[in-house]
Amino acid sequence: MASRTGVNDPDLDRRSANFVPLSPLSFLRRTAALYPTRPAIVHGSRCLTWGEVSQRVARLASALVARGVQAGDTVAVMLPNVPAMVEAHFAVPLCGAVLNTLNIRLDAASIAFMLEHGRARVLLTDREFSAVIGPAIAMLGDAAPLVVDVDDPACLIGAAIGQVEYEDLLAQGDPAYAGSLPADEWDAISLNYTSGTTGDPKGVVTHHRGAYLNAVANIVDWGMPRHATYLWTLPMFHCNGWCFPWTLAALAGVNVCLRKVDPAEIFRLIQQHRVTHFCGAPIVHGMLINAVGTLAGGFGHPVEALIAGAAPPAAIIEGMERLGVRITHVYGLTETYGPAAVCARQDDWELLPIQERARLNGRQGVPNLMQEAVAVLDPETLQPVPADGETIGEIMFRGNIVMKGYLRNPAATEACFRGGWFRTGDLAVTEPDGYIKIRDRSKDIIISGGENISSVEVEDVLFRHPDVLLAAVVAMPDVRWGEVPCAFIELRDGVVGDADAIIEHCRAHLARFKVPRRIVFAPLPKTATGKIQKFVLRSQLKSSEALQ
Amino acid sequence: MASRTGVNDPDLDRRSANFVPLSPLSFLRRTAALYPTRPAIVHGSRCLTWGEVSQRVARLASALVARGVQAGDTVAVMLPNVPAMVEAHFAVPLCGAVLNTLNIRLDAASIAFMLEHGRARVLLTDREFSAVIGPAIAMLGDAAPLVVDVDDPACLIGAAIGQVEYEDLLAQGDPAYAGSLPADEWDAISLNYTSGTTGDPKGVVTHHRGAYLNAVANIVDWGMPRHATYLWTLPMFHCNGWCFPWTLAALAGVNVCLRKVDPAEIFRLIQQHRVTHFCGAPIVHGMLINAVGTLAGGFGHPVEALIAGAAPPAAIIEGMERLGVRITHVYGLTETYGPAAVCARQDDWELLPIQERARLNGRQGVPNLMQEAVAVLDPETLQPVPADGETIGEIMFRGNIVMKGYLRNPAATEACFRGGWFRTGDLAVTEPDGYIKIRDRSKDIIISGGENISSVEVEDVLFRHPDVLLAAVVAMPDVRWGEVPCAFIELRDGVVGDADAIIEHCRAHLARFKVPRRIVFAPLPKTATGKIQKFVLRSQLKSSEALQ
Repeated sequence: MASRTGVNDPDLDRRSANFVPLSPLSFLRRTAALYPTRPAIVHGSRCLTWGEVSQRVARLASALVARGVQAGDTVAVMLPNVPAMVEAHFAVPLCGAVLNTLNIRLDAASIAFMLEHGRARVLLTDREFSAVIGPAIAMLGDAAPLVVDVDDPACLIGAAIGQVEYEDLLAQGDPAYAGSLPADEWDAISLNYTSGTTGDPKGVVTHHRGAYLNAVANIVDWGMPRHATYLWTLPMFHCNGWCFPWTLAALAGVNVCLRKVDPAEIFRLIQQHRVTHFCGAPIVHGMLINAVGTLAGGFGHPVEALIAGAAPPAAIIEGMERLGVRITHVYGLTETYGPAAVCARQDDWELLPIQERARLNGRQGVPNLMQEAVAVLDPETLQPVPADGETIGEIMFRGNIVMKGYLRNPAATEACFRGGWFRTGDLAVTEPDGYIKIRDRSKDIIISGGENISSVEVEDVLFRHPDVLLAAVVAMPDVRWGEVPCAFIELRDGVVGDADAIIEHCRAHLARFKVPRRIVFAPLPKTATGKIQKFVLRSQLKSSEALQ
Repeated sequence: MASRTGVNDPDLDRRSANFVPLSPLSFLRRTAALYPTRPAIVHGSRCLTWGEVSQRVARLASALVARGVQAGDTVAVMLPNVPAMVEAHFAVPLCGAVLNTLNIRLDAASIAFMLEHGRARVLLTDREFSAVIGPAIAMLGDAAPLVVDVDDPACLIGAAIGQVEYEDLLAQGDPAYAGSLPADEWDAISLNYTSGTTGDPKGVVTHHRGAYLNAVANIVDWGMPRHATYLWTLPMFHCNGWCFPWTLAALAGVNVCLRKVDPAEIFRLIQQHRVTHFCGAPIVHGMLINAVGTLAGGFGHPVEALIAGAAPPAAIIEGMERLGVRITHVYGLTETYGPAAVCARQDDWELLPIQERARLNGRQGVPNLMQEAVAVLDPETLQPVPADGETIGEIMFRGNIVMKGYLRNPAATEACFRGGWFRTGDLAVTEPDGYIKIRDRSKDIIISGGENISSVEVEDVLFRHPDVLLAAVVAMPDVRWGEVPCAFIELRDGVVGDADAIIEHCRAHLARFKVPRRIVFAPLPKTATGKIQKFVLRSQLKSSEALQ
């Protein structure tokens, strides 16, 4: 068409001067050139600058290539939040390979499955996990990857089991290795296995474009300043630490390493390094509040925290505020690179009572800046549910912060993308202001006498009771009603459980049929990322019933 | 290859669930949904919320479609910084069309050329420009676009000349019109003609992807907070206001409109609306300092300003600091969506004396976060010049913040992209810290007795003299030396020019052959964007010599 403004003119097409694949590798290159002497990674008494990290990344990438790693190969890591874990997030993609971060809580059989399914060529492993990795490697026989020991002096247990040590491998590498951006921004950057409760784990494949965009969305949505200091309370193996290794490179920030979630150590590091930002599940925040001890005055500087995995109860928001920590609630899944929705605060919430603020902040919210959409849709018609806070539908995502699909699992990929959206399996409502609010996982809904009971709704009420630290409500078989709610409760330190008082509290705030029929006081089983494992509670319930 | 991690698996390809074209249109959609009642545009006593702006944008887009505008068509605007200008930045791309912003200082013949070359279907024009637009339209005859009058009550001159008034057009539109994202993020979003000093203007075509990325880079590189309040001292017709209309939508910020750069009005608006951010050429900042009057105490709140078009002299950095305004120097061209390089501050600069800080901050710097590279290269070999602060090369850009090319001008497009970089024509050096520093436009270099003299270097020295408000140095023909420098100087208010004192000052700071042979005190001719028009000075020099 003659009138169109050069849309199809070949001389206006993409070329190397004006089109570069989006990749978080660009952030490291820029920051190493611009802020070479600024601290990048702190681990105990060790501090690496961005210039040093860039050289170590080049060394690792070139050493991997020298050991036969090719574009598209998988490099797996079994590492806590140590410098090698940050470095792997750049070095593995720099040589065109795909980073597979293994959950450090897993058993040998699961690890062996993932290494085999992901066809890992190399595995970097911390000595702490040798007792698991050794047997896993043995199971693989000839298909075993090259094993590289990361010999962290801060690790006091475990023997070296690999063919080469990490620092020795780096010494063999080339600090001037340039590597390259991916040929296509759609190329895979990472492979993360979801911890499915049934069936084999699924391998979530993400790409450079999404990692780049989500790393930047973290900055804008959270209002992160240049040179932010970030404490690694969130496991980096979990959705690539929600893309924060790449965010910190973009900001020329500081990664403060942490091998395990220990409240005293977290307090010490926040004060020592003037940490400005950290992330975690409510359990991490709960531990901090529980352990606050002498620090009632707070940290002496403002701290921002993201919370995900479950809605933060009012007690946690209040407790953290007393410490000077402002909490933002975010929501997502491994399939969305971690959080891709945010409960964006509105100005007028600040004036509300804490219970109401907690209710508003506890919602799953709205898409983050760079995710096109999150919506609650009817899973059959794909029409949005009315924004009435009542009608339940399924949360679905659409946009650039959604995975490529599941590795070598076309059936699961097609199923989750059916209809043009990514289906999360989480059930939710849309409130009148457009914010979404989870009701339940499909499988966590309790159906009692034909009525649906949202376990989250009952848990929200339990959380408001002053004795309750954590609560999980699951379905208990019942001859008359089919199912009835059973509440598992972890009490605050020093509290003696009073089941009658808690049931009374529930009666005051819930419809009769939603009140738990049974209260169990016990520590709750959690995943490595702090999520409560309801399937364990259900099986406990089954075995205890079998004994009755 | 069997080992590759699903790179070529068709089930892992792009689909609508996980791939959405990058477009700043997404920012308006999200912000209108999330912050519908927050102020979006303030103009005099008028305030539009983001919800209202979104509806007005939908009305305008649908009304344009109803008037025959199709995907790829051009819609031109001749508008100062008024609400319609912000709205056009969303409505025109929302219906798939391309926004051509005309320089409001241009004459009828230039406007007619651009409307014809760009094949504009519609023109939105402010009454202030009717005396220019009327004749321009007449020149086009049958090829004239539909003319829409924007009847701004704040405009006190000019008659309506169009077929329909803007608000009437909006009233005919559909506030629920959804429009669509571009089919391809590479599709054109805007067309900006460069004000070439010779030959016909060139039409710079930019795309949705670049506009999206640069809008976000503005946030991260400048550390802009959510809900920033931005004063429109920068003309929005100039490189789409450096993408800030889209940045403010992403931030749910406030656009404070300004029809013309008037220091008293700027002071008033900054105080009244607690403006946090504004941009401009050094001339804008110089006017503010010159007019400071009773405001010596500053604005009472911190203000951030970007400065581009020329390096900010120490007097401007100091003067603005006294007002509580922190200046960041940025660099770019229409071909790079406005600034795409930033003189990123380093912590240790803060402790330096003001002259040294001004020198460091006055450099063109480094690529912004989302531009892949800016470098000083040998224009023949395309090798980087040594980082010695001495070797002159040409500044070249590469990355996603570079235009598609020049509209219907393949020869110019090929020439500027030759070698895989965008060639700016600006000459510069790379300093030892990797920051680039402009020496001159190729055509502004003065060649005296075979030695190159950088006019910028001489101007930098002139700026340090307390009497000098603005300075421009150009080549003056000389029988013995070929060329010698001649300085044109605009003095501060109330100062009487002393040419001998200024030459003495230059002798103290410059090599003998670089000292201007002639000093002319006069107001300097400037472009609409505040750039000094050296070609006018050269022609003045020629005619004055002809008279001698």
